[in-house]
Amino acid sequence: MRTRPLKVALLGCGVVGSEVARIMTTHADDLAARIGAPVELAGVAVRRPDKVREGIDPSLVTTDATALVKRGDIDVVVEVIGGIEPARTLITTAFEHGASVVSANKALLAQDGAALHAAADENDKDLYYEAAVAGAIPLIRPLRESLAGDKVNRVLGIVNGTTNFILDAMDTTGAGYQEALDEATALGYAEADPTADVEGFDAAAKAAILAGIAFHTRVRLDDVYREGMTEVTAADFASAKEMGCTIKLLAICERAADGASVTARVHPAMIPLSHPLANVRGAYNAVFVESDAAGQLMFYGPGAGGSPTASAVLGDLVAVCRNRLSGATGPGESAYAALPVSPMGDVVTRYHISLDVADKPGVLAQVATVFAEHGVSIDTVRQQGKDGEASLVVVTHRASDAALGGTVEALRKLDTVRGVASIMRVEGE
Amino acid sequence: MRTRPLKVALLGCGVVGSEVARIMTTHADDLAARIGAPVELAGVAVRRPDKVREGIDPSLVTTDATALVKRGDIDVVVEVIGGIEPARTLITTAFEHGASVVSANKALLAQDGAALHAAADENDKDLYYEAAVAGAIPLIRPLRESLAGDKVNRVLGIVNGTTNFILDAMDTTGAGYQEALDEATALGYAEADPTADVEGFDAAAKAAILAGIAFHTRVRLDDVYREGMTEVTAADFASAKEMGCTIKLLAICERAADGASVTARVHPAMIPLSHPLANVRGAYNAVFVESDAAGQLMFYGPGAGGSPTASAVLGDLVAVCRNRLSGATGPGESAYAALPVSPMGDVVTRYHISLDVADKPGVLAQVATVFAEHGVSIDTVRQQGKDGEASLVVVTHRASDAALGGTVEALRKLDTVRGVASIMRVEGE
Repeated sequence: MRTRPLKVALLGCGVVGSEVARIMTTHADDLAARIGAPVELAGVAVRRPDKVREGIDPSLVTTDATALVKRGDIDVVVEVIGGIEPARTLITTAFEHGASVVSANKALLAQDGAALHAAADENDKDLYYEAAVAGAIPLIRPLRESLAGDKVNRVLGIVNGTTNFILDAMDTTGAGYQEALDEATALGYAEADPTADVEGFDAAAKAAILAGIAFHTRVRLDDVYREGMTEVTAADFASAKEMGCTIKLLAICERAADGASVTARVHPAMIPLSHPLANVRGAYNAVFVESDAAGQLMFYGPGAGGSPTASAVLGDLVAVCRNRLSGATGPGESAYAALPVSPMGDVVTRYHISLDVADKPGVLAQVATVFAEHGVSIDTVRQQGKDGEASLVVVTHRASDAALGGTVEALRKLDTVRGVASIMRVEGE
Repeated sequence: MRTRPLKVALLGCGVVGSEVARIMTTHADDLAARIGAPVELAGVAVRRPDKVREGIDPSLVTTDATALVKRGDIDVVVEVIGGIEPARTLITTAFEHGASVVSANKALLAQDGAALHAAADENDKDLYYEAAVAGAIPLIRPLRESLAGDKVNRVLGIVNGTTNFILDAMDTTGAGYQEALDEATALGYAEADPTADVEGFDAAAKAAILAGIAFHTRVRLDDVYREGMTEVTAADFASAKEMGCTIKLLAICERAADGASVTARVHPAMIPLSHPLANVRGAYNAVFVESDAAGQLMFYGPGAGGSPTASAVLGDLVAVCRNRLSGATGPGESAYAALPVSPMGDVVTRYHISLDVADKPGVLAQVATVFAEHGVSIDTVRQQGKDGEASLVVVTHRASDAALGGTVEALRKLDTVRGVASIMRVEGE
């Protein structure tokens, strides 16, 4: 074994960073044996240098992250600051000064993945980011290495633990959205400002990263259709149950049927209880992958938290250190397929639509005509009426989102349709 | 991209090999883009050269596998023959003549993994075998790369599709073992001679491989305790249901509580319906991994079949080809921890025991005394009596297999115990 240690600079020492530092110290011998050389924590960049950090030598702590990544003797920079800047500049500076980078930064990777990969490439360095998607769950490596000889057609994932916790609570207890969110906040599963989670921004970043790797195509955050889950109601869960379904916030990356384009989207959807994703409870994450040869695979585990995220960071750290020792780099960006990313209107799926309608003869015929005129084929219709009010629940066959949108617009114009109570996509069938 | 192709020799052209060849041909452009150089099928060694093999140039076919691996211009040998010889000699010969190897051979890896890794190492070549365990499911790579910075404590897996199909059928339909086996055979899920599957030999080979990688320790096939599932009855399933459990044939690799030793075993066991493995249906495989930092992970997918196995082989082929181009090798055997492998008697778990007893006062007291004398603590007891016959169902707290064995031996000697109807371990709690 080489005795001269590999030097690691840690950018950020919050929940994840402190756990990375702790494991690097307590498991130093194991890491050395697995890498083939010892690893040494050579510097820790933080915002608040006076905070006591158990197990971290105070002499390693600095507020000058830029100077740390410019030192020139750093082998690997571990970036767990999050956000766009200063993370982006620090990472590119690290490449220019000879370091490889392990990052857990989903927002940055989703927005600037191509530029960061290019910077890594120019400097012949590694950029690894297993921790950016679904915490501890090995996903990036299986997609870009294990499935490198296969053709991935669909990635269907629960990639946000906060929203899964909320939806699971709504499903289990019958609670409404606000009540379930309050519980998630009280238990520490939701942040004080839950916008990034409940509006789907976090999941959309992960969808962009997964779609890019799965389809060997650059997929930008702007390419991902995004719909949050704040409008999911207890009534929607009741409807889902009647269909033998539950509701999950899904990140869905799909290759079109003709193989010539891809789509990426995040929205709440009904999925059958028999689907493996339906049983993913609490704050767990799971990603379902469908490919030509492998068939259906699922990867399940904790999607967030200090320790799980640190596990993914350290797995990457070991890989990058091994690459340093052998003088090689791992697989970089693979975007050769360069497939066009289609807009949401081109997505084809099934829909569950609840309408409030007048309780009089001929309404169903009117509604059915609108669907037919827009080329949306109806699978089932259920009518319920009382006191002059009635509801109509329509489940469609597969249709494009554009056709469904046109249908709903026309339905709203019917005198007999008093309102569109909910529209939910039906996936995983 | 390099234009000179990497040359691949295929040993075996059955269900898996023909699918590997097919995908190499039909997806040649994708593979070239992902590797950075074209790959060329340079030879196919078969036993029956006259069989028509669609899509394979007959001039590539040979019966002389030894000459093929000795050619010297082969970059990667893909071994999908199976069995110990001639596969073992061909693989070591391939290393000696400059090729890296991708293998799907679980029996060989479980028996001679250490020697094969040593041969790869001496010749500075790669030995990859993702397809050897659980078909298409990425497991070897996540365990030895993604979790390289973590400490794995337990691997709990359904790694044999045939037996899972049979047990799932027994659970779902109430069928007995023979009836369910007949159905599995009729549907092609079980071979004419199902011994390797139903007696747990196949799962034991996979357990040895998984334990070795998970614990960085050599675990030989002989180290794995093995019990088949041919004696699981419909009555066992009824008992499992009463406990809120189902029965699965599990491969279990565990680090002892003190961390100083490991165990590996294969046997049928009850697991709670709430455990993610309980919902693994039909011929699917799934492996549950528990580690210090990542927590609980699960990997799920098809565990066998030509296409899924080919997916895993091709993922390895891409990785090995990339390594060839960069002049590096991937992670080799990691056995530095060299932990002792403890015998089955040291395994600590819970037990479900059904006893046929005389229906008279004092029997429960006698039985409870025997458990106490052997240091096995009882969790629950249920007595059912009719017509002078009675049954006693005991569920224990955690105890060593040796203590439980002593208990059962003593119970058999009691006059009031007419028979031990079944003993089943309870896992996953």
